[in-house]
Amino acid sequence: MALPGFRDFYPDDCAFRNAIFAKWRDVAHRYGFVEYDGPPLEPLDLFTKKSGQEIVGQLYNFKDKGDREIALRPEMTPTLARLVTARHKDFKKPLKWFAIPQVFRYERQQKGRLREHYQFNCDIIGEASLEADVELIALLIDTLRAFGLTEKDFVVRLSDRIFWSDFMDAHAIPEDQRYAFIQAIDKSEREPKEVTAQKLGPAAEEVFAVLADPTVRKSERLDTVEAGLRARGLGDYVKRDYTVVRGLAYYTGVVFEAFDRSGEFRAIAGGGRYDTLLKNLGNVDLPALGFGMGDVVLGELLKVKQAGFSEILTLDFYVAIADEQFRPQAGALVQKLRDHGDWADYPLKPMKLGKQLEAATERHATYICIVGEEILQGNVQLKKSDTRQSKLVPVDQIFNHLAPETWPAAENQR
Amino acid sequence: MALPGFRDFYPDDCAFRNAIFAKWRDVAHRYGFVEYDGPPLEPLDLFTKKSGQEIVGQLYNFKDKGDREIALRPEMTPTLARLVTARHKDFKKPLKWFAIPQVFRYERQQKGRLREHYQFNCDIIGEASLEADVELIALLIDTLRAFGLTEKDFVVRLSDRIFWSDFMDAHAIPEDQRYAFIQAIDKSEREPKEVTAQKLGPAAEEVFAVLADPTVRKSERLDTVEAGLRARGLGDYVKRDYTVVRGLAYYTGVVFEAFDRSGEFRAIAGGGRYDTLLKNLGNVDLPALGFGMGDVVLGELLKVKQAGFSEILTLDFYVAIADEQFRPQAGALVQKLRDHGDWADYPLKPMKLGKQLEAATERHATYICIVGEEILQGNVQLKKSDTRQSKLVPVDQIFNHLAPETWPAAENQR
Repeated sequence: MALPGFRDFYPDDCAFRNAIFAKWRDVAHRYGFVEYDGPPLEPLDLFTKKSGQEIVGQLYNFKDKGDREIALRPEMTPTLARLVTARHKDFKKPLKWFAIPQVFRYERQQKGRLREHYQFNCDIIGEASLEADVELIALLIDTLRAFGLTEKDFVVRLSDRIFWSDFMDAHAIPEDQRYAFIQAIDKSEREPKEVTAQKLGPAAEEVFAVLADPTVRKSERLDTVEAGLRARGLGDYVKRDYTVVRGLAYYTGVVFEAFDRSGEFRAIAGGGRYDTLLKNLGNVDLPALGFGMGDVVLGELLKVKQAGFSEILTLDFYVAIADEQFRPQAGALVQKLRDHGDWADYPLKPMKLGKQLEAATERHATYICIVGEEILQGNVQLKKSDTRQSKLVPVDQIFNHLAPETWPAAENQR
Repeated sequence: MALPGFRDFYPDDCAFRNAIFAKWRDVAHRYGFVEYDGPPLEPLDLFTKKSGQEIVGQLYNFKDKGDREIALRPEMTPTLARLVTARHKDFKKPLKWFAIPQVFRYERQQKGRLREHYQFNCDIIGEASLEADVELIALLIDTLRAFGLTEKDFVVRLSDRIFWSDFMDAHAIPEDQRYAFIQAIDKSEREPKEVTAQKLGPAAEEVFAVLADPTVRKSERLDTVEAGLRARGLGDYVKRDYTVVRGLAYYTGVVFEAFDRSGEFRAIAGGGRYDTLLKNLGNVDLPALGFGMGDVVLGELLKVKQAGFSEILTLDFYVAIADEQFRPQAGALVQKLRDHGDWADYPLKPMKLGKQLEAATERHATYICIVGEEILQGNVQLKKSDTRQSKLVPVDQIFNHLAPETWPAAENQR
């Protein structure tokens, strides 16, 4: 048994996971992002410096044999901050960096909940303009579109922490009550209105008005972001929604969360601008923004939508051995196919030909080569699985005999 | 700072690492192997059951908050054994499975030595015939060939634990001395001959004769393996060498290690048959064999040989903005290119055109699109970086204007 909260990836699961990773990488590359990674273990204080001592209760942390306090990473941003602040002068700004770390949380209370997931992290560092926010949100949208999801399936809710800072300034909310004020807004969708109203105090009615209709207040910043997305044809994927404030204290500007339209799932992704973090953690003053998207919620959504991709494990060729005396020639043929870059397999032990053909079918082999006595003249039987056509071809010209036009018309073969 | 012994992967390092992973996956797929994975954390006893309590001294192990004894995996085989024995009835034999886990060892004494690496693990489970040994060793050879390494660069040393079992039987070496006997052979290349001779006792001269010339003794088993590899044209990549015994106690048949021919590096890979392990660990009687190949020694070798691959991070398109008023149109063009699957980037803030063209060059962009006032007629300047040719093309037909034959002759352009 694996530890509670940890997943095993049997081949089908692993193919599904890897297909998600491949899409993530593909879209990030299209956006000019480059991949980085760091260790899954870091010094404990890297995480407490960002999130406070409270985080320790949720970590896999321990002392190593060198008496160091260490932890499995619960998130990637502190590692990113460490890497960037250490060598920021070596890189042209803006940095557009992504990573796909496995991250870990020990949450004692939530039984059945996973304690690890993989998280696609995309960050832009060193650019203060709102165009960077547009670019990052477009990347988030296109990542989900790459899985076949459309504006009918998901929406990115846009908000702005500065909007709320300004609001709290205007209503003279004292510094020491602001965290609670923001938390009350964050929870407003999940709590009775009276509870939220009490937490918000005199400003409550005005808050409710903004939440009900975000357009009652002007926001040039969100206007700019939305216009940038509309210019790219992505306007229908976003919706202004000031309930989104993001739990973490460090956000400083536009924030956003992606949700499925049906409302069945937790957030698919979330992020925003955190212009002061690199200064606070590493004393390097660089604006930054980023998002994280986990593989678990996304995977559940894709399974429901049956969107995305097939994860069938296939072969190009199955090489069947009609007579064991020709095993060496079969080995040479398998080698030739693999050297050509094809995915090829064959029986490791003597098997009846019928069983071999069954194995070829189970493995979804596109072609089957049967090595029999024709090999003495340098030939093999080549069968095409979809049409069940068959022909004798010289081994040394096998790749010339694959193209559709080299096969006779197939009408009568099925 | 990362923890001692842990690597950060800045983008260049990450690209190099990922290129290694991509080759590993590609070759494994060609051989019909499918990928699996497991958790990096496992119950401690999964590892002590296989390797004994001694291993604890080399592990990252700790108690989690649920009071479980757990450890970061030092190797993948116990996890593989756990997965296979739990569900072996769900899969047709033989299984051909691979994984690319990061594995961890806490070795206190060796300063400067890494405490983690990635390890390409390939295993065949459920097939006792020597053809499986041939297949696995061929995979190892082709993995290294895929990086451009040849028989001049590396050799796979072949040996057989059964040969030594039989030898010890013939010389009546008592059970309790056999481990030390095998260890003495393992160390014979690195110790003075007298020391080895003393450890081996009366059989020493005969052992030395076999080590000096493995052909003095017949071995049908190695003959079969070598013949299978020769049939595939891979005979020059292997050499019989009975000094290879593999440290681990659990091997039961053919064993092998890959080394660079120059002898500069530690073993690149090693493995062999372990037919009794699944029975011992999970009470499922399935023969098995496998190898592991780390990314560190391989990476050092590839850097010396300059073999393998370029890890330059490139772009297909850089979209330059000649006049800020056309930023929305530039955004739409960037979106179009990315939707097409191309890797495209552009400036996030206003920059002089000259600076933008420099950025395009630094990013190795194949094409540059300049969005200026021609966009009002639906056109952009398209520049080809290698020939420095340039032409005005309609945005909605841009992909038709990339082919070489659509450009004027380039002789006078450089």
